[in-house]
Amino acid sequence: MDPYPKPLRHLIKELKRLPGIGEKTATRLALYILGDKRGLKEGLAAALEGIKQIQLCPECFNLTDQVRCTICTNPSRDASIICVIEEPSDILALESANEFKGLYHVLHGLISPINGIGPYDIKLQELLQRMRPTVKEIVVALSPSVEGDITAQYIHKMICDAGLRMCISRLASGIPVGGELKYLDQVTIASAIRYRRTVMEPG
Amino acid sequence: MDPYPKPLRHLIKELKRLPGIGEKTATRLALYILGDKRGLKEGLAAALEGIKQIQLCPECFNLTDQVRCTICTNPSRDASIICVIEEPSDILALESANEFKGLYHVLHGLISPINGIGPYDIKLQELLQRMRPTVKEIVVALSPSVEGDITAQYIHKMICDAGLRMCISRLASGIPVGGELKYLDQVTIASAIRYRRTVMEPG
Repeated sequence: MDPYPKPLRHLIKELKRLPGIGEKTATRLALYILGDKRGLKEGLAAALEGIKQIQLCPECFNLTDQVRCTICTNPSRDASIICVIEEPSDILALESANEFKGLYHVLHGLISPINGIGPYDIKLQELLQRMRPTVKEIVVALSPSVEGDITAQYIHKMICDAGLRMCISRLASGIPVGGELKYLDQVTIASAIRYRRTVMEPG
Repeated sequence: MDPYPKPLRHLIKELKRLPGIGEKTATRLALYILGDKRGLKEGLAAALEGIKQIQLCPECFNLTDQVRCTICTNPSRDASIICVIEEPSDILALESANEFKGLYHVLHGLISPINGIGPYDIKLQELLQRMRPTVKEIVVALSPSVEGDITAQYIHKMICDAGLRMCISRLASGIPVGGELKYLDQVTIASAIRYRRTVMEPG
């Protein structure tokens, strides 16, 4: 017989749906939530209600609770350069580097023939519609995987076919700063050699 | 500037209050909940609402959503033996062993002078009130720690002082089944030697 009451079992079952949370962790979290006396239950419930306001920015498809996202509405951002990314969480990673000052475009996926995801299933046509003459550069910041490469090639072809003239770049691939050669995989090392930078010209 | 909308930040903040959940995991979980299309938000919110019905059984202080818990209301349980435990989650562990058929008593803590928890801060007086003449044995199933030992001694003294005559036992402490001697700590091995069982009498 189950010694736990049904509502607790229900919470454990729902928590188990989260990624990386198994039976034991879900039970521990559920008992913690149940035993909490500092408003955790109410806080979580209010937060779950709150995220229902979140929608996609109609411009860049980033997450927002306003009409347009905080980056698209920021007048100090450079609208002539658009960085194409896979997921909204990539924006946080890129913003934390504090190096990119342009706008973003979130594809919400990558072209993946094996999973039946074609160019019309992600926000690629919406990217093409943003290609005004003021846009000078597209930075393709997709992960260096098969799907990332296919999607990057598609973007290249899409822009050429539309007769647009702009710079297309991809993020540099190579040794992470602070990384050690001996611990790196062969493909990364090969890429770092292929795309090596010239630091002094002869003469 | 934070690229995430405020409601998402709020959910991340609330998830971070859970034990073992840091900034990265909370962000991953919040984005997963946000992206889910199979009613996870609603399921979690309903489950959080549901656990508000959970209260303590007035008899044994186990968790229940009824007037009394499923173990206290089960007529096939042996009411003459009461197992004293620290937390409701200990019941699940003991029930899964399928060996104990009596009732439980949840203390909701252990006596801990260093943390300012005295005998009147946990459900010890409530245990004494359950000591009807029909109760023949108390199984003290508290963890073999300093606090567990102090609490066990207090229960012993409390029952003697009340002039009650019953058997008091503690869970056996020793080598876990399937455990290997070479990987066990010295205290457990010492305990296993001290409480060794006689398997054959001489002659």
